[in-house]
Formats: sequence, structure tokens, C-alpha cells
Amino acid sequence: MIIMKADATEEQIEKVVEEIKKCGLRADVSTGAYRTVIGLVGDEGKVSFDHFAVLPGVKEAMRVEIPYKLISREYSKLFEGAGESMVIKVGSIAIGGDEPIFIAGPCAVESKEQLFRIAEGIKKAGAHILRGGIFKPRSSVHSFQGLGAGGQDEAREALSWLGEAGRKFDMPVITEVRGETQVDLVSEYVDILQIGARNMYDQDLLTKMAKKGKPILFKRHFGAGIEEFLSFAEYIAAEGNKDIILCERGILPVGKGKNYTRYTLDLAAIPAIQKETYLPVMADPSHGTGRRDLIFSMSCAAIAAGASGLMVEVHYDPAEALVDGPQAITPDELKEVIDACQRIHQLVASGKADEKG
Amino acid sequence: MIIMKADATEEQIEKVVEEIKKCGLRADVSTGAYRTVIGLVGDEGKVSFDHFAVLPGVKEAMRVEIPYKLISREYSKLFEGAGESMVIKVGSIAIGGDEPIFIAGPCAVESKEQLFRIAEGIKKAGAHILRGGIFKPRSSVHSFQGLGAGGQDEAREALSWLGEAGRKFDMPVITEVRGETQVDLVSEYVDILQIGARNMYDQDLLTKMAKKGKPILFKRHFGAGIEEFLSFAEYIAAEGNKDIILCERGILPVGKGKNYTRYTLDLAAIPAIQKETYLPVMADPSHGTGRRDLIFSMSCAAIAAGASGLMVEVHYDPAEALVDGPQAITPDELKEVIDACQRIHQLVASGKADEKG
Amino acid sequence: MIIMKADATEEQIEKVVEEIKKCGLRADVSTGAYRTVIGLVGDEGKVSFDHFAVLPGVKEAMRVEIPYKLISREYSKLFEGAGESMVIKVGSIAIGGDEPIFIAGPCAVESKEQLFRIAEGIKKAGAHILRGGIFKPRSSVHSFQGLGAGGQDEAREALSWLGEAGRKFDMPVITEVRGETQVDLVSEYVDILQIGARNMYDQDLLTKMAKKGKPILFKRHFGAGIEEFLSFAEYIAAEGNKDIILCERGILPVGKGKNYTRYTLDLAAIPAIQKETYLPVMADPSHGTGRRDLIFSMSCAAIAAGASGLMVEVHYDPAEALVDGPQAITPDELKEVIDACQRIHQLVASGKADEKG
Amino acid sequence: MIIMKADATEEQIEKVVEEIKKCGLRADVSTGAYRTVIGLVGDEGKVSFDHFAVLPGVKEAMRVEIPYKLISREYSKLFEGAGESMVIKVGSIAIGGDEPIFIAGPCAVESKEQLFRIAEGIKKAGAHILRGGIFKPRSSVHSFQGLGAGGQDEAREALSWLGEAGRKFDMPVITEVRGETQVDLVSEYVDILQIGARNMYDQDLLTKMAKKGKPILFKRHFGAGIEEFLSFAEYIAAEGNKDIILCERGILPVGKGKNYTRYTLDLAAIPAIQKETYLPVMADPSHGTGRRDLIFSMSCAAIAAGASGLMVEVHYDPAEALVDGPQAITPDELKEVIDACQRIHQLVASGKADEKG
Repeated sequence: MIIMKADATEEQIEKVVEEIKKCGLRADVSTGAYRTVIGLVGDEGKVSFDHFAVLPGVKEAMRVEIPYKLISREYSKLFEGAGESMVIKVGSIAIGGDEPIFIAGPCAVESKEQLFRIAEGIKKAGAHILRGGIFKPRSSVHSFQGLGAGGQDEAREALSWLGEAGRKFDMPVITEVRGETQVDLVSEYVDILQIGARNMYDQDLLTKMAKKGKPILFKRHFGAGIEEFLSFAEYIAAEGNKDIILCERGILPVGKGKNYTRYTLDLAAIPAIQKETYLPVMADPSHGTGRRDLIFSMSCAAIAAGASGLMVEVHYDPAEALVDGPQAITPDELKEVIDACQRIHQLVASGKADEKG
Repeated sequence: MIIMKADATEEQIEKVVEEIKKCGLRADVSTGAYRTVIGLVGDEGKVSFDHFAVLPGVKEAMRVEIPYKLISREYSKLFEGAGESMVIKVGSIAIGGDEPIFIAGPCAVESKEQLFRIAEGIKKAGAHILRGGIFKPRSSVHSFQGLGAGGQDEAREALSWLGEAGRKFDMPVITEVRGETQVDLVSEYVDILQIGARNMYDQDLLTKMAKKGKPILFKRHFGAGIEEFLSFAEYIAAEGNKDIILCERGILPVGKGKNYTRYTLDLAAIPAIQKETYLPVMADPSHGTGRRDLIFSMSCAAIAAGASGLMVEVHYDPAEALVDGPQAITPDELKEVIDACQRIHQLVASGKADEKG
Repeated sequence: MIIMKADATEEQIEKVVEEIKKCGLRADVSTGAYRTVIGLVGDEGKVSFDHFAVLPGVKEAMRVEIPYKLISREYSKLFEGAGESMVIKVGSIAIGGDEPIFIAGPCAVESKEQLFRIAEGIKKAGAHILRGGIFKPRSSVHSFQGLGAGGQDEAREALSWLGEAGRKFDMPVITEVRGETQVDLVSEYVDILQIGARNMYDQDLLTKMAKKGKPILFKRHFGAGIEEFLSFAEYIAAEGNKDIILCERGILPVGKGKNYTRYTLDLAAIPAIQKETYLPVMADPSHGTGRRDLIFSMSCAAIAAGASGLMVEVHYDPAEALVDGPQAITPDELKEVIDACQRIHQLVASGKADEKG
Repeated sequence: MIIMKADATEEQIEKVVEEIKKCGLRADVSTGAYRTVIGLVGDEGKVSFDHFAVLPGVKEAMRVEIPYKLISREYSKLFEGAGESMVIKVGSIAIGGDEPIFIAGPCAVESKEQLFRIAEGIKKAGAHILRGGIFKPRSSVHSFQGLGAGGQDEAREALSWLGEAGRKFDMPVITEVRGETQVDLVSEYVDILQIGARNMYDQDLLTKMAKKGKPILFKRHFGAGIEEFLSFAEYIAAEGNKDIILCERGILPVGKGKNYTRYTLDLAAIPAIQKETYLPVMADPSHGTGRRDLIFSMSCAAIAAGASGLMVEVHYDPAEALVDGPQAITPDELKEVIDACQRIHQLVASGKADEKG
């Protein structure tokens, strides 16, 4: 990373960027209240930092070992001064801001009627963003894979419902992208692109999605430590797209005997990640527990742990849902969750304000 | 398990108990608002339930497969009607009642002065019960094992400080028992006996401790699923001692790359356990995270998840603590934790009350 | 799955296939020594099996719940009689046959000279197939990602070296495909396509690769149980490509304190998988341990456990390797591994023959 | 640790030991071909090594950070020169010597007749040591806990059968000790004391057993990394008892979806442990897999990985065994296992000899 002097000129910055490109790397230029910092993107092994240190306008040039430097608080402090958290705006919604944000909707879009009915329900319950799965990653090729599996036309139709429902009920919409060939199509219809847990390690997909310039909700793989989760978020940031919403959704359960939850929702990851990065972190209590009767408790707990919001699966008739019914709640139950979470968020936010003071 | 008729006589109950003993098993007799239920304790494989079904006063006799039947809600519903949660009284403190309970103190007792200074600090901060380790389980034989390692006299002296501090600052006291030879000695001085995570599987120790009749704080092993955690709590209940306080303290972290927390605090275990058993469940954010800077967040989260209280390690100078300093907070920080948790508890408790209504 | 009568005609089989397609599913037709069996591929939830049961020539129609039915021994027994293991031929090499097969080469292709020197070395050591990574999945965007990261031309050049080395030293070649856009390009040059552990869950990539009709070496994800590993192999089989070589390469380590190996090589998975499926299973002791000093022992152990061969990383100068040097061995060490493994294979194979007799 | 000069006198050694005791620690004196080395046992934090460095006859005094120094190869090299592995003699049996050793017998002793019949069977099959559980650690208080649960008299009787069977069939005998109160009793009857996986962390039990001076078979906890496994073995060595046989028996399975084995037998732990310590390492494929149909394969694999022997559960009628029948094999199957393992051991041992040469 190359720290420019406070009075470095545009031309000096340009010159550094050119030199970086000559080395076969890319440059990530961040200009803040304090100064400009230029991150090197790519294999730094090839580069001599001594070479950069003597360029005009350069204050300091040094190798940074952490694999997620572009999204780290340490990095942002260099040019911003304070390590402020990032607020991602999607339409009128601010993720990472003063209010917790609730993303809700069906696990899988099943029909236009189903989607609209749920969209209306979650809007009334106070949700901010509508989710609906169209390309479903599934453990068995022999089970329902979402309407997107029906072909290009069916996928486009289901995506158009999502867009229409978002406009009708005034909510941004989000859906999961599972493969590279879906990126362009999905980007036409949604406001936020989602990477599911199983694709977290798919670096080519991340790179392709990042280039679309849309906010990305990025779920932690169930087998990834925090360091690795952030290192793969860095693949998105490396394309110049830092509108990344991190999402904890449960890691592999471990322990002799039965465990009674589908995954282990790692809530300590939320404050731990917030120490490392300025990006907002959400939680998904539906996948994290796999049990609708635990969602109220774990939603409250996630917000109390500092989450910027929740992603919750909702269905008016969970027993009839084609995918993951046992972990969906009703719109009425969602309202209870949102009400409790908003009150807890206020308490905790004020507690944290005291902590800093 | 043998369900007696509502009008079964004392003599009929006695008769059933005798028959159970003849089979080489023990009987757990619970009489509630509705009726009397007699649980069989021991290897049920030897028993014919048909034999019991025809005894006078018996309504039903059946094998129950769950390994923690004596502490299960299902069981208590049979004689109590409603599946009420249990409140454990220790002096004037009620664990599992309307208020969250805070157990605090040093990881290890280092000196009388250190203990009293911390005891005074946590009392002012609002803590209810004083903890202090005297027999420390440690991963290396070459590190400090607590004052109890100095021999019988030193152990007794340190235990007497604990008792004295408890009386002086009007708090019940708790310490960990690590081996069978310590049970009698420790029981002379403390109000609650603690089983640490590493001893959860030590069934002979559990049995010996249970017989003392004192409340037992029972920590989950870091490699145990919930089913197994409850199954070993059953070893205590099988001795007729149901004053068991369960405590989630973090399970083995899993995930590629670094994880930034010492363990994974499994907060979903709290509501999941509460569905299974009527026993109160606490959480230990100190061991659960290993990081003092995460304790505020995870304390709030644990209470929001429904914990009946917390066990927190406190030291006036964490950097100087002989054991586990990095995970201890100061008395002032404890006060902030307690204040925030009490407010969250109120919110969540009222939310739950609505849920039931 | 639909079991045809032994004397079912071609036309009757055709008719069943058509009916399956009408339901929006695909058909997997297997004709063996005994009879023809038709597997349904896709979401069976939509299908009435009663409908198929009454079609002419159908002996039995039933839902099969296991998610990897097409590759299961149970399934192959229906039409083959005996549950024979499958032998996959790649040129003159037979994987899953009488001899263990050794795939070796550099973790990453670094230069033509490096590749050829290693290829020559492993050929002399007795290896059968040449590996060399060109698109490297890496945990950090800031580290070397393989020559393929340099762009289409560099990727093509590196791939052409691989092909050339294979021809020169008379070995089939294999390389990893990391993203969908690489499938066509890589397929031009290599004999076997590899899916790395991190892409195991990438079902769209699997589907695209399967359609190429080339053998696929399919590595288990470090966070996948055996059931899920086989369920994703089924995505390949569902495209009609059953030339799948399974590869155990280590799962996430679990345990308090340091573990001294990078992953846990799950050797019991080898015989356990062989009970479930007729596909050959190999092991990768290089990734599985991350330690070159354990490779001899774990290679012997994997073959003793019944592996059909090994994939081993080899470099003439491991200390200088750009990627994963600490887990590479030299060609001379490879020779020792191959010699020992061949002798162990003979012993174990004869032991197994006795077992069956 | 304190390294004495080659010509240090007895008195100088005595003097160092005395000084160590004055610090409240114990001394572990090892005299080898080269020199005497004195290890400090206990909390080294209290000690100034400068003080020891200037004592007469002392060559070097230094703090050693690894928690299992007394059993480490590094340590033994200091006084032995070469890092020779240790051979533990039990009667005429040498564990860690030129031949693999097979410990076999029933999971639980059920009757004298059952024990003798199995003992005869395993002797004929070629086993060296007879095992038989009398105090069974069990996950449910409501299941059979071994004959030892019947009381002191029944325990003594079952133990006497074990001793008698050992004498009759000329095999040393081993049984598990589960609690401190069993140590004296069991030691009267058996040649080797066993610590089961669940008691690995029970440091008070380890200490009490170590003092008996008998060899101890020490099983790895299913939630312990290698470092921690060795650190708890050090508790035994710290009592001056280094006749410790380590045993890998499987760690917690991890992975999404079903895994098809009860634990993950971590065979790489065998060579990894052998790099760290001079103690012999065995494997237990019965508990490690929980499946009798995998025992042949995993026995071969364990020996190929370098294990000094195996512990295998045997029953003449596995389906009728009171405990863990699904993982027991018959005496005939044991013979096949032993034959194959002995041949593999020869191959691997000769390969290793080459490796060293």
C-alpha cells in the first residue's frame, strides 16, 4: 500500500497508478479527509516497494500482509482519520446506518401470486427489502432448484415478478446468483445481488458480479473462518466495488451427539468482524438455526450483538413452502421480530455510544 | 417411566418404588399438581414394563428413549400440567426467575486482597454471585493451576477467603471442582458447585458432587452437542439433585482460516435447550469468546437469546491476571454490561410474554 | 427409478423416456447384463410413479430417496447384477483397475521449463498422469493465482505446455477448472478436468463441465460430509457423464489446541464411499496434510485404506515453489512413495480378495 | 530445563534438584548416554533460570515453552543423542518395538464365560493383550454402565476374571479407569491402565493413575488437537511415569450432510505425533469408525501410517454384545486383520529404514 503525502498532486497520484499497472497489478485509489492511499491489487510478490517509496509525492510504501486490506478499518483510517463504518444506500434504504434493516421474503419464488402476497405481508410487518430465490442452490439434483431452473424464459419471468413486486410495495429487491451465466440476467432486475454460502469461495463468480457495480450481499460459507470470509469479500473490493454487505448465516455444527440446530449461528463473528472492517454485517437466523421456533430469540440476539440488520425467510404458510419451510416464519411473526429488534437496537446503540464516550 | 393414577395412594407409590429397586434400578418420584410420576434411573434394558403396568395405582408404564428424561419438559408436564421453568434459589438469589443473574469474579483466586478487592467491585457493579477459581484445570502441567494446587492447607485457606468474601459482600459463592477428592472440601465452603467444560464427561465426579445436595452450575463441554450436554446433566438429576444450572460457554471453532474467537459461543443453544428442559441456562461470554472487547456485545446477545444470567470473569487489572487476563473485564465494564443486559432482559421477557398470550 | 422387465423392448423403453420428458424431467437409461433401469433426473416431487408403473414393459416404478442414486451401488446392482466397481480409462491408463494410479506434478505451472523438468521427473518415478495448476483458487486476491490469471493468451500458452508435456512424456494431463468461462478453453488441452475442493458446491460449474464428456476428478469440499460429496457428484452424473473420479483431500481440522496438520485426511471416507458408489476414489495426501514429511506415511495409509490412487504435488525444489511448497515432495521421494504404495496395494488387494471368497 | 555438564557429579545433580524443590517445583531427572538433563515440573513462571545457570555442574538453564517437553523428542535428544523411540515392555510384550501389537477383547465384560471365550478366540487369532471394559463411560445414565456399576464386589469379581483370563491365555490385560475411586482397585488386577477419550482432560485422575507406576494407555479426546493430547500426557510424565502408550481413536466428524462414520479417525496424527514425541502411538479403528465393515481397511491404513499397534473390539457374536456391537468384529475377522497388518508393517518399516539411510 502506498500512502501519498497530504499535498500530493493529481499527477503524482496518476504516476503511481501507472507504475503499479506496469508491474501487472491494479491500483485501488482512496481519497479521504486526510490524504490519498493507493492499494495494490493482485500478487504483490512481484513488486519492489522500495521502487515506489522514492516516487514524487509518496510518503510511505509498504507491504501489507492482511489479505483483506482494502476493506479493513486499518486501511480506511489511513485516509479517513476515524475508522467510520460504511453506510450502503439502496434507494432510500441505508444499510449500516442508524436503523436495523430487515430483508424478508420467501426462500424460493413459487408463483407471482405467492410472491406478491408475501411481499405485501412483509411490507406491512415493517420489512425494508424483498428477497426471493429464483436460482436455488440445492444439495440434491433431484429436488426443486427454483423457477430459474426452468430455462431462460422462466427465469426472466420470475425475475420480472420480483422487480414488479419491489416497485409495487416500494422495496428494493435482492436475489441470489449461483453461476456466472446468471449474472447479466439477474442484474437487469434486482437492486442487490446475493452470493449464497455455498458460492463464497467461487472467486470467478465474485469477480464477475463485482463488476456490475451493484451492492452485493455476501454470505459466509459454513466452513469459513472470519479471516477467509473477509479475504473473499476482498475479491469483490478488488474490482473497485466496496458496496458489500456481509452476512453471517451459521457455520458447521460440531459436537458429539445431536445438536438440535441446523448450523451454529456464530454471533460473536458480528462484533469480531466489525473490529476488522468498516463494512456492515447482517445475520440470517433462518438458515443459521433451521428452526422457525428459534428465530425470534436469535433475531433479538443478533441485533443485540450489533448486527446491522437481518435476512429472514417468510411464508404465509410455511408448511406448504417448496423449500425450507421449517425455517420460515409468517408475516405476523416477522412483525414481532422487527418490533423487538428495533427496541433492542436502540438500547444497544445507546450503550455503544456510551462505551465510546 | 411410570405414571400413577391421580388417586394413587402413598402405599401404591411405595410398592412401585420397591419393585423398581428389586430390578436393581433406582426410582425418581415426582409429585405435582396433577399426579405422581416415577422415573426409572439406570439401565432400563433389564426391566419389563408390562410387569409395572399391572401394579395397583399405575395408569401407564412405558419406556422413554430420551437420555435426559428426568430433566425434560415432557416429563415435568406429566405431573405439573404446564411445563413451567424451574427457579433455583440460592440464599436470596433466584436463578431462572424474573431477573437475570450475574456471576462474576476472578478466573483464579490469587490472594485474599485480590479476591476481596474484586468482590467489592463486582458487588458495586450489581453482580449477584461471586466466583473464584481455586482448582484450575489447565492445558499445561507447567502453568499455574490455582492456589488449590499448593496442597490441602492452601486450598482450605483460599476456600475460606471465598466464603468470607461472600459473607462480607452478601453474595453466594461458587467455585469449580476438578476432581473427586476435592468434592467434600469444596462443599464445606461454597453455595454452588461448578463443573467446568473439561469435566462435563466425568460421570463419577458428577455423581459424587450431586450427592452433596448443593446447586450445581454445569458447563457444556466444547465438544458436546446439546443432546449429550443434557444427557450428562441427567447423571446429576439421577442422584435426586435437580438444582442444575446449565451454562453455555462456547464450542470448538470450525472453519478454514483464522476465526478471531477462542471458541464459538453457541447462543442458539440457549433457546434450543429451553425447549427441551425446565432447567435454567446461563452463558459465559468470557470463555466463549476469549476476548474482553467482545464481552459487552456477547453479553447483550446472550440475554437477548433468553439466558437466565451470565458468568463473567472480572479483574481490576486484567493485564496482571495470572490466568486468562485477555478475557477479563473490569468492575466498571461489568456495570455497563449488567445495566444493558437488565434492560434487554425486560424487553425480551415482555416480548415472550406476548408470544405466549 | 423405473425398472424395466427383462424382456422390455426398445420401444417400450423409448416410451418411458418420453413420458419422463413430458413431466419436465430427464431420463438416465442404464442397460446391463440383467435388465434396463431408467433413473429420473430432476425434481421428482412433480411425478406420479403410479403413472409409470402401468406402462408396458415396466416391472417396477418407485421413488428413491438417496440423493446420489445414479452413482450408487444399489442402482448399478439393479441392471448389472453384481455391484462391480467402475474402471475409468484415460488413454492407456485405467483408474479403479488392478493397479493404483499416481497423478503428480507441480501445484502451479510456473514456466515451461519448470513443468517439463517436473514431468520428466515424475515419469521416471513411475507416475501415470501429469497435473499442473493454471487457474489457482487462492484465499487472497493479492497472491499468485496461476498463469491463467494473466489473461486468455497466457492461459492458452500454459495449457499448451501441459498438453505438450503430456505427449512428450506419454502421460494424460489434468488441470483444475475454477470458473465457468474456463471450461471450453481447458477442455481443448487436457484429458481430465479437475474440480477443486472449493468449487465442489458450484453446481452450475459442475453441470457445464459434465457436458464436455471428459473424465472429471472431483474433490471433496473440506466442509462436506460424504453424503453431500456424493450428492454433488450426482450433478455430474445427471448430465450423463459418469466418468467421475472422487478424491478425498482432507476436511476441516477440529480440536482444541494446535493440530499440526493443515486438514484432517479422512481416510475412512475411502472405504465408506466405496460401499456407497461404484466410482473410484483417490486421495490427495499433499493438501490433506500440508506437510511434505507426512506424505510417505499418509500415501501408504491411503492405499492401505483402499484408494485407487493418489494425487501428489511434486517439485524439484519445493522451497522455491510459488504455491504450496511446504507440501510438495521431490521426484525421488515420489518414487519411494510409489514403490511402497504398489507393494501395499498388492497386499491389501489380495486380502480383500480373500475377504470376498 | 537444566542441562548438566557431561562430567557433572551426582552431588551437583542433587544440589540442582534441591534448589528446584525450594522453588516449589518438582524435578524430572533423565540420565542418558550423553549427559543428565533435569526438567522442571510445575509452574515455571515462579522460577529464575539465571539462578540455576550459575550452579556448579550446570551447562545451560533455559525455559522451554512447549507444554509437553518431558515427552518430547527434542528433550530426549539432549541426553540420549539420537531421538530414539521408546519401547514399553509389558511382560514379554514390547510396545513400540519391531512388531505391531494387537490389543483385543470385548467392549464390555458381560460374564466370565463371555470373557474367556473371547480371550481364547483372540489368542488364537494372534492378539497380544486382552482388553475388557468393566467401568464403561456411557452417554446415558439409563444404559448399561459395565459390571463395575454393580458395586465394589461385582467390580472386584469382574476384574478377577480379567486377571484370570490373562494368566490362562498368557496375555497381559488392560481395562479402563473412569474415576479416581477406581484407581487402587483396578491396579490390583491389570497390567495396563487405560484412560478413555472422555477422561483425557481429567488431570486429577491422570495424576492419581500415573502414581501407580503401571503403563498407561492414553486415548485422545475426540475434541482435542494433537498439542493438547500431548500436553495432557505430560500430566502423567510429570509424575515420573513415562510408560505412556498414546492412542488415536477418532475425532469429532465435521461436514455438512451425513458422514457415515461415527468419528473421523485422524491417521495423520500418528506420524505427526511421532515427530513430536518418542512415545509409541496406537490406533483404535473400532471407536474410530463405529463400523465393523470398515475395520479391516482402517486397521491396514493405521499400520501403514506407522501405528505401533491396534486396539480392536472383538465379540464372538457382535449382534448380541451389550455395548457397541456394531463396531465389533469376530475372532476370525481379527485374524485376517492381524495377518494383513503384520505384512504391511514389515513393508512400511523397511521403507522407513530406507528413508533414514
